[in-house]
Amino acid sequence: MTAQPEPADLTLEQKASLLSGRDFWHTEAIDAAGVPAILLSDGPHGLRRQVADADNLDVHDSISATCFPPSVAVGSSWDPEVAARVGTAIGREARAAGVSVVLGPGVNIKRSPLCGRNFEYYSEDPLLSGILATAYVRALQAEGAGASVKHFAANNQETDRMRISADVDERTLREIYFPAFERVVTEARPATVMCSYNRVNGVLASQNRRLLTDVLRDEWGFDGAVVSDWGAVNDRVAALATGLDLEMPGTGGSSDAEIVAAVRNGELDEAVVDRSVRRVLALVRQAVPPGGDVDPDEQHRLAKEVAADCAVLLKNERETLPLARDAAVAVIGEFAVNPRFQGGGSSHVNPTRVDAALDAMRRLGESVTYASGLADSAVEIAREADVAVVFAGLGETDESEGFDRETLDLPAAQVDLIKAVAAASRRTVVVLSHGGVVSLEGWHDDVDAVLDGWLLGQAGGSTIADLLFGITNPSGHLAESIPLRLRDNPSYLTFPGESGHVRYGEGVMVGYRYYETVEVAVRYPFGHGLSYTTFETGDLTVTATGDDSADVAVSVTNTGTRAGKHVVQVYVATGAAPVRSPARELRAFTKVFLEPGETRRVELTLGRRAFAWYDIELSRWVVSPGEYTVQIGRSAAQIVAERPITLAGDVIVRVLSLDSTVEEWFGHPVAGPELGELLAASLPAGQSRQVEGSPDWLRMIASMPMRQFTKLLAYRGIELPDGSIPRLIELSKGRDDG
Amino acid sequence: MTAQPEPADLTLEQKASLLSGRDFWHTEAIDAAGVPAILLSDGPHGLRRQVADADNLDVHDSISATCFPPSVAVGSSWDPEVAARVGTAIGREARAAGVSVVLGPGVNIKRSPLCGRNFEYYSEDPLLSGILATAYVRALQAEGAGASVKHFAANNQETDRMRISADVDERTLREIYFPAFERVVTEARPATVMCSYNRVNGVLASQNRRLLTDVLRDEWGFDGAVVSDWGAVNDRVAALATGLDLEMPGTGGSSDAEIVAAVRNGELDEAVVDRSVRRVLALVRQAVPPGGDVDPDEQHRLAKEVAADCAVLLKNERETLPLARDAAVAVIGEFAVNPRFQGGGSSHVNPTRVDAALDAMRRLGESVTYASGLADSAVEIAREADVAVVFAGLGETDESEGFDRETLDLPAAQVDLIKAVAAASRRTVVVLSHGGVVSLEGWHDDVDAVLDGWLLGQAGGSTIADLLFGITNPSGHLAESIPLRLRDNPSYLTFPGESGHVRYGEGVMVGYRYYETVEVAVRYPFGHGLSYTTFETGDLTVTATGDDSADVAVSVTNTGTRAGKHVVQVYVATGAAPVRSPARELRAFTKVFLEPGETRRVELTLGRRAFAWYDIELSRWVVSPGEYTVQIGRSAAQIVAERPITLAGDVIVRVLSLDSTVEEWFGHPVAGPELGELLAASLPAGQSRQVEGSPDWLRMIASMPMRQFTKLLAYRGIELPDGSIPRLIELSKGRDDG
Repeated sequence: MTAQPEPADLTLEQKASLLSGRDFWHTEAIDAAGVPAILLSDGPHGLRRQVADADNLDVHDSISATCFPPSVAVGSSWDPEVAARVGTAIGREARAAGVSVVLGPGVNIKRSPLCGRNFEYYSEDPLLSGILATAYVRALQAEGAGASVKHFAANNQETDRMRISADVDERTLREIYFPAFERVVTEARPATVMCSYNRVNGVLASQNRRLLTDVLRDEWGFDGAVVSDWGAVNDRVAALATGLDLEMPGTGGSSDAEIVAAVRNGELDEAVVDRSVRRVLALVRQAVPPGGDVDPDEQHRLAKEVAADCAVLLKNERETLPLARDAAVAVIGEFAVNPRFQGGGSSHVNPTRVDAALDAMRRLGESVTYASGLADSAVEIAREADVAVVFAGLGETDESEGFDRETLDLPAAQVDLIKAVAAASRRTVVVLSHGGVVSLEGWHDDVDAVLDGWLLGQAGGSTIADLLFGITNPSGHLAESIPLRLRDNPSYLTFPGESGHVRYGEGVMVGYRYYETVEVAVRYPFGHGLSYTTFETGDLTVTATGDDSADVAVSVTNTGTRAGKHVVQVYVATGAAPVRSPARELRAFTKVFLEPGETRRVELTLGRRAFAWYDIELSRWVVSPGEYTVQIGRSAAQIVAERPITLAGDVIVRVLSLDSTVEEWFGHPVAGPELGELLAASLPAGQSRQVEGSPDWLRMIASMPMRQFTKLLAYRGIELPDGSIPRLIELSKGRDDG
Repeated sequence: MTAQPEPADLTLEQKASLLSGRDFWHTEAIDAAGVPAILLSDGPHGLRRQVADADNLDVHDSISATCFPPSVAVGSSWDPEVAARVGTAIGREARAAGVSVVLGPGVNIKRSPLCGRNFEYYSEDPLLSGILATAYVRALQAEGAGASVKHFAANNQETDRMRISADVDERTLREIYFPAFERVVTEARPATVMCSYNRVNGVLASQNRRLLTDVLRDEWGFDGAVVSDWGAVNDRVAALATGLDLEMPGTGGSSDAEIVAAVRNGELDEAVVDRSVRRVLALVRQAVPPGGDVDPDEQHRLAKEVAADCAVLLKNERETLPLARDAAVAVIGEFAVNPRFQGGGSSHVNPTRVDAALDAMRRLGESVTYASGLADSAVEIAREADVAVVFAGLGETDESEGFDRETLDLPAAQVDLIKAVAAASRRTVVVLSHGGVVSLEGWHDDVDAVLDGWLLGQAGGSTIADLLFGITNPSGHLAESIPLRLRDNPSYLTFPGESGHVRYGEGVMVGYRYYETVEVAVRYPFGHGLSYTTFETGDLTVTATGDDSADVAVSVTNTGTRAGKHVVQVYVATGAAPVRSPARELRAFTKVFLEPGETRRVELTLGRRAFAWYDIELSRWVVSPGEYTVQIGRSAAQIVAERPITLAGDVIVRVLSLDSTVEEWFGHPVAGPELGELLAASLPAGQSRQVEGSPDWLRMIASMPMRQFTKLLAYRGIELPDGSIPRLIELSKGRDDG
């Protein structure tokens, strides 16, 4: 790499040319000025470096690469170490392939289980999403590749994704849809952030100053480049002015011309161009030269190791799992041979190889038969076996980037197959492969065990075999709720919107926050996951470490006979805030490995944000004084220990105004008592008695703004001393620290 | 009344003075110009003409007047004739008392059962509210008094009512919160409309041009005066400029001075002042001189007659009701002696007299004992009686204008009493008195019958006695759903809002629209109501009468042994619209009286609006072509007959643009086929095969706007003939009738 120029060394035309791609995947080079092109490629769970200069919709035409478990599975690991190992591995492949920026991870929240791209996202919970994505980005970037955190923001569906306005209130953005981005940006300094296609509250994300500049840069301190999602730019000049640095893909020079013209005619300040050029140049400068060797076998082994931590054992009755090596096992279903292991769309990887579960099971088990799924033969082998294992799930065309699903149901033929097998078999296990939540209704109670693999990457097949036979011990936990009915989901009535708008009517009550608050039963709650061993939790201590933070310690014991991993889930519940809080929210977690009989004391920290809510009136996070309950959950629905803690919180004395209510005035620590004295002195005796004797009257005036209250007083012939209200307003400012 | 001047005859100061009150209840007079003051008084269910010049919060200090059943009860009558009789009666009392404008009816929708003022509103359904309010206003105004339809708009709670912003999307305003106002304005021409205190989407209703001018006047043709709710005006000049004519109460001249100053300094066009002055003068001119005699006994009899049509028999097992004259009846509960019959706040009437149920029951029954509620004595008399009748409900301080409730529960002491009595008594009847929905959980299954009186006005006590003994036959039906749990209500998570905003997240899915669509069970559904006789419905015919309307006919037979009234409820269900429609919506209803054995053929009309949804993109009502199901329901949850009907609907061909998606382009009847031909001619053979062979690709581009699609085509070397897209856009305009 040669030394690079500053904007001042370049012509306006050269600068403009740097702000969009040379083609679909490269930035523009300026050879004369020593600026090379760099290559960006899809690939949050494996590289998708396209062979030729094809466009982004030729999703199957790329060089081969290791397909790691997609984010839906990594989310279920609840383990930042898993995310980091995937990040490192992809970073190495990227460098070997000469890819400078890997387009991922996706940290959008799973608002609806129907979103077609949920397999690319981690969770319905922002903390879990943010911690995993941060670990991934740090590890990826440590290998020299840049990350592209996407899709910023409120891109929670595929339907009409290039136009729809996500209509979301500010508190919900701050508490649900922003935090994963915020954490990655502030903790992992990603090279780029990718804007989304959609509108947010009416304004396209690609030309949204509030998102791209006010929040991302001014508040979070992002200093990388903002890149457009491919084709997300409508108005290049507006996008540049509001904070979008690099438009992708290239537009054959038309965007460059628009930028040049806008500067020439005074519409756009050249300093804005220079600022974005500096960011793009910095991105190019950071690019590490291609190099390093990647061993596909080693990468595949890694893909298998991490996949084992991701699968979720949902149900396991009568100790059906793990399978005994000498059990007669009937394997049923096409996915056992041709596995479903990744999602469709821009993240689609051309894998180096693919493990089939059936092959692996035949290596592990002494008696394994197979039927692809024709009900007769399946039922026949199931009847003869000790246990039947049915591989079910969604096909690759059932879910993808680009469209949303319309149902959670498994294909009816699969449900019929499961039920037929379960009726014939002594014991039945169902192994699921799918990117978005599928319903277990109609067959759940008929089977003994359910192992939910989600999408486990190219080594998923052998991973599942290991889990089934107990070579490895399941330790995944649900990163999203599995509802009983689609219509129970809080976004049911508004997803995917209509007439160009999707109203986030449920606000912060997304996923388990809704189910737990409204007490709607689910099939399996967020955080649920079984193991072949058992864990016990005890001796919870919670200690305040200041006005707005606490330390948590809890002892976890492996009370079973196998080594295993346990996820300690820390939730906080409170009624202290003046806004509606979810019944509980995940505020910390960690995954611990324990040998049989081993006990570990696990310590976690709850920082300020664990107790804070976003106050839209003050435009800041606030910790309300009061009581909080710190809870340890096996899931969001099952709390096994809890301790109350009282926090001093923030002292906020609001400035009074004529719009403040009588209740707020009298509640003010300084102005309130003074107003009371002034009023008492002004009230004729009869009025005073009347007020005191009329609770109706008092309740009716409590919510009356001072503006109206003073008029009402005047009607009653009561005049406060001249200028006393303005004086008290000034007084209230003195104590304000809002 | 003398002849009145035109604005041109008055000075600016005189004109300004007419635009706010002289005091709390009168408009300003200009004696020199022959403009008298007129008197406005609270009183949707009875006059509240205050004695002296008191302010509006002295709610108990008014002349005596007949207290009719409040709107909550009239709503349950499902009978416009009941509403009209109340309107006529109040109109007569108003004229006799010299009241020119009666401040009512309130037609706000019951979004939450917790709203403290729900007793003043009719229903959770806009059609039912609108039809009853229209009948009331017509009848009231026929007597010479003016109505004031209130509170416009989206005033669905009391909490923070003077500041809170109701954040409601436009379709929801149009389909749920506006229609009752729209119907009254367009069909009954009320003298005034009263603006609400709250903000709507951030803008105070009192200075909201969209509400007060664009919608109310320009769209609905309102030609009366807009009056402020008492104290709702913040900025008098802004309020005047946006459409608020008359500020109440007076402000001692300060508002007049602001108006004069604004005209003088050019901020306000004097024509705006003149326009509002003309409206106020017209209101004064319409005022009918005081007169007419009112017979309090006659009014009381009327109050009793209408109350009988309002009470709702929710449950009646083992033919517990009606009571036999010779049954030993134990009457329990304070409300049997001191009835709860109206709500608190500005509508509070000083009644001419009050009937107690116990007195009336003693006249009707041969053996009636009483205990006020001490559990021991109550249980004792209950044990000895054939049937115990427990009077329960909410006290007057439990619900009122000015604050919202926090629970649906009956006071715990009452629940305990009911359960104790039910355990001791052979049969138990519960009579409820309350303004807002109360929960029946915890005791419902313990009792045999429940008669829900809501608030029945001053003759409620004797009305209930008549209903219990079968002197009259219950015919009320629920105008709002009774949920199993408060948290089942769709507004549960957002009511009453926070930080100055209440988000109407449930959109159009209010009340039964939500419960039926999401299939959430309720205790008793909207429309439910029993009778002492039985009705059967048959021979439903539905006939299209055009592209967007239909006639409905159904036969109703009284199959029991008593005369009674039956409500025919007509719902429409459809999936034809491109927006999310409720499972069904009430679209017509009528109440019919039938002698035992009598059959009536009932005919109803479904006009265009019965099938229409509000399209926010076209800003108009649209009937989508397709299938509709017309349903006859005993309630919103119990459909007893239905017929499908196919409507041609509206032909809407939308204008294409670069923002229209590929799917929309190809779906256009004219431009679509042409584009297809152009594209086919431009595609190289290889590309064509590739596109056809890639369903993923097709699904991903379906939602791509033409702007992006043409860029993608260019990438593939495909160029449509020059200017073809603009030409097709022009072509699409030719067929537009949107």
